[in-house]
Amino acid sequence: MNITRMHGAGGTVMQKLIKETILGNLENTKIEGGIGLESLDDASTIPIGDKEIVFTVDGHTVHPIFFPGGDIGRISVCGTVNDLSVMGAKPVALSLSIVLPEGFDIEKLDKIMKSINEACKEAGVAIITGDTKVSNVDDIIISSAGIGIVDSGKAVRDCGMKEGDVIIVSGNIGEHGLTILLSREGFEFESELKSDVAPVNGLVQSVLNAGFEINAMKDPTRGGLADSLNEMAEKSDLGILIHEDKIPISDEVQAIGEALGIDPLTVANEGKVVMSVKEKDSEKILEILTAHPLGKNAKIIGNVTSEHKGVLMETIVGKRIVDTPMGDPIPRVC
Amino acid sequence: MNITRMHGAGGTVMQKLIKETILGNLENTKIEGGIGLESLDDASTIPIGDKEIVFTVDGHTVHPIFFPGGDIGRISVCGTVNDLSVMGAKPVALSLSIVLPEGFDIEKLDKIMKSINEACKEAGVAIITGDTKVSNVDDIIISSAGIGIVDSGKAVRDCGMKEGDVIIVSGNIGEHGLTILLSREGFEFESELKSDVAPVNGLVQSVLNAGFEINAMKDPTRGGLADSLNEMAEKSDLGILIHEDKIPISDEVQAIGEALGIDPLTVANEGKVVMSVKEKDSEKILEILTAHPLGKNAKIIGNVTSEHKGVLMETIVGKRIVDTPMGDPIPRVC
Repeated sequence: MNITRMHGAGGTVMQKLIKETILGNLENTKIEGGIGLESLDDASTIPIGDKEIVFTVDGHTVHPIFFPGGDIGRISVCGTVNDLSVMGAKPVALSLSIVLPEGFDIEKLDKIMKSINEACKEAGVAIITGDTKVSNVDDIIISSAGIGIVDSGKAVRDCGMKEGDVIIVSGNIGEHGLTILLSREGFEFESELKSDVAPVNGLVQSVLNAGFEINAMKDPTRGGLADSLNEMAEKSDLGILIHEDKIPISDEVQAIGEALGIDPLTVANEGKVVMSVKEKDSEKILEILTAHPLGKNAKIIGNVTSEHKGVLMETIVGKRIVDTPMGDPIPRVC
Repeated sequence: MNITRMHGAGGTVMQKLIKETILGNLENTKIEGGIGLESLDDASTIPIGDKEIVFTVDGHTVHPIFFPGGDIGRISVCGTVNDLSVMGAKPVALSLSIVLPEGFDIEKLDKIMKSINEACKEAGVAIITGDTKVSNVDDIIISSAGIGIVDSGKAVRDCGMKEGDVIIVSGNIGEHGLTILLSREGFEFESELKSDVAPVNGLVQSVLNAGFEINAMKDPTRGGLADSLNEMAEKSDLGILIHEDKIPISDEVQAIGEALGIDPLTVANEGKVVMSVKEKDSEKILEILTAHPLGKNAKIIGNVTSEHKGVLMETIVGKRIVDTPMGDPIPRVC
C-alpha cells in the first residue's frame, strides 16, 4: 500500500498510519513518569527534578510558503510554540531543521528567517540549535522541535475533560486553512482573509497565571475544531455538545466555506486554542481571554456531557453528529 | 543568489550561509547560562536546576535510503544521539518529524520504523514525540531532534582543546560516505564496505564514567575528520598536528578513495568520535576505547600545539595543510 495525501492531513486515515506503522513498531516511547508518544497528545514530557521538560515537533511543508498573514517561517515557530502552550508549558527553546531545494533563492530564505525571528520575539523563545540540508524537494521544508517547562504533574492533557465542563474556543475558526487555499493559484476570490497564525503562549498563560485550571486543551490545527473536539471527547471518554450559533466564525469564512463546500469546522487554525474548563470558572476565563488581543472573539461554544459519546452540534434544524474528519480538506496546510 | 548542493554539504560554503543568512537574522539564540546556537557546537544547552538540558537536531535526506550497514531510520537515531554524546550528555529522548512523498510504499516505512526501533534500543533512548507530513519530496525525509541531560557545567565543547592535548579518533574513518557513494546507481565497485552508522553514547560514556575528562569532542560527519579537526582547532585558537600513518583507515577505504580521487579525511562518518584529551590520560583512554566494540580501531593520531594554527599532517614527504573542505565530496550523505 502506498502513501496518499490523506496520510498527512490529520484525521482518521492519518491516525491509522501513525498507530499501525509508526507507533506499532516502536518499543521505547515514554520516559518513566512522563507523558509518552502513545498518548498522541500535543507534546510529551520528561520528568527532571520538580519540573517536566515538555517536548514536541512539527514538520512544515505549507504551500505556498508565503501567504496572507504569515509564511512558513512564522508557522514553524507558532506551530511548535502552540503545541507546548496547550500542554500548559512555558515554551523556552526551539530547534530548526531546514531542507532547501537546489536553486532556492537565498533572498527568500532571508525573508523567512526574518519572519522566524519576529515570531520568536513575540513568543519569547530562542532558536538554540539547527541543521540545514539541500535535497530534492520542491520547496523549503522546516521542521521545528520545541522544549517547554512545566511544574511536575501540571501538564494540561487533551484527555482531562470532566463532566459538566464548558468548552471555550479562543476566536474565529477556519481562517488559516481557507487563506492557504485561496492563496493557491487558480483561486481568484476577492478576499481580505488572512491566516490567524500566532503564538498562543501569552494567551494561555494569562488564564493559568490568574490561577484557573484548564482540564483539557488543544490547538485545532490539521483537521480543525472537529478533529480536536473529537479527540478530546474520545480520550476523555465523554461527549461534547456544541451550539452552531455560538461558534465564532467570520462572515467571510462562512461565505467562502459555503461557496467551496468546505466545512470550516474541519479546517486548520494556527492561532487558536480550544479548552475544557469548570463551569464555575468559565465566565471569568472568558473575560481574561477576550481581554487579550488574540482572544477577543473567544466564545463559550458548548459543554461536556456523559449523555452521549463523540461530538454533537445543536443547529436550527436539530442535533447533528460532528465526525472526526477523514483529513483536513486542504492539503499541505502547515 | 541561489542555493547549491554545496550549501548543504558541511564545509566553508555552508558555514557562510549559516552565519550570514540564518544566524545573521536571529536575535534570540541562547538561553541565559546555556550554550547557544551562535556557538555552532554539536548541541546547545538549557540550564535547569543542577542539570543542563542538551538539545540538538539533524535533518536526514540520505540517498539511497537503504544502504549497506544501515538506512535513513538508523542514521536518524544515531546522528542525533551522537551529537548529544559528543557534548558529554546522556541521550534520553528523540522526536521524529517525517516527510513522505505521495506514493511511498508503506512497507518501506515499516522497515525504516523497525530500524529506528533497533537503533533506539541500542542507544537506550525513546522516541517520545513525532509528526508526519505528506509533501512533494522525491523520497522520505526524517528530521530528528534530541534531548540529553548533563550535569551543570559539564558539557564537553568543541572549543575546549588545550595545548599539549592528544587527539584520538575512535576508529576507521571514511566508511559511511564512501558506502553511500558506492550504493548509488552507476557505481559498480565490488566491495564489502559498509557504513559505520552506530550510536556512540556507550563508547563516550565508558570514558567519562571512568572519571576521565575530555577537553573537546566532535563526531566527524559531513566534511569528515578534516572538517571536525579544523573546527576544533579554530574554536580553541590552537593548532593540530596529525600523523598520516597513524590515522585509522581500512585498506578498502584507502583504495576506493584513491580510485575515485576522494580524500577519506573529508568524507562523512556516522559512528566515530574525535576527542582531545590530556596527554597523561591518553593511553588509558585509548585502552578503554579499544576495549569497546565500537572503538577497537581507536588510535592516537596527533596532538595539539600553539606552534601553528589550523591542521597540519605529517606525511612521508613532509607536512601538508589539512584544509577545511569546501563541503563533503559526496552530497546527501546523511
